[in-house]
Amino acid sequence: AAALNAALQAAYFIIGVRAAGLAAGPMTGLDFAGVQKEFLDDDHTPLMVVNIGKPGEDAWFPRSPRLEFDQVITTV
Amino acid sequence: AAALNAALQAAYFIIGVRAAGLAAGPMTGLDFAGVQKEFLDDDHTPLMVVNIGKPGEDAWFPRSPRLEFDQVITTV
Repeated sequence: AAALNAALQAAYFIIGVRAAGLAAGPMTGLDFAGVQKEFLDDDHTPLMVVNIGKPGEDAWFPRSPRLEFDQVITTV
Repeated sequence: AAALNAALQAAYFIIGVRAAGLAAGPMTGLDFAGVQKEFLDDDHTPLMVVNIGKPGEDAWFPRSPRLEFDQVITTV
């Protein structure tokens, strides 16, 4: 539950960064143990890293495929 | 990783709902097995339920305590 709540807050943070005119890139798949050792104490657990900055030219990859509306929405 | 990515999307969804003028209440601690059985198939896993609607009078609880800026921010 803590990770889920933290992820919601991270998304709000990402939207805030983008609303401020900067690019935000959430990342996982990194050396979490190293991040914890370098930046955090034992009471904190890294969830993700978000890079923030001004993108250069050709900074974007094509968007990954998305499911169609009918594939993911069920009206109850 | 799927749960983390889904939680980010859920937060974007919650902001969208609120931007549309409705209240959104993300919830966990519910009967996830029942939700899965009632609404989903074996390829989908419930992450949270978000109630959506127009709040009535006195719909809000006091905000829970937050940590102070200096307690959570480290400048590196």
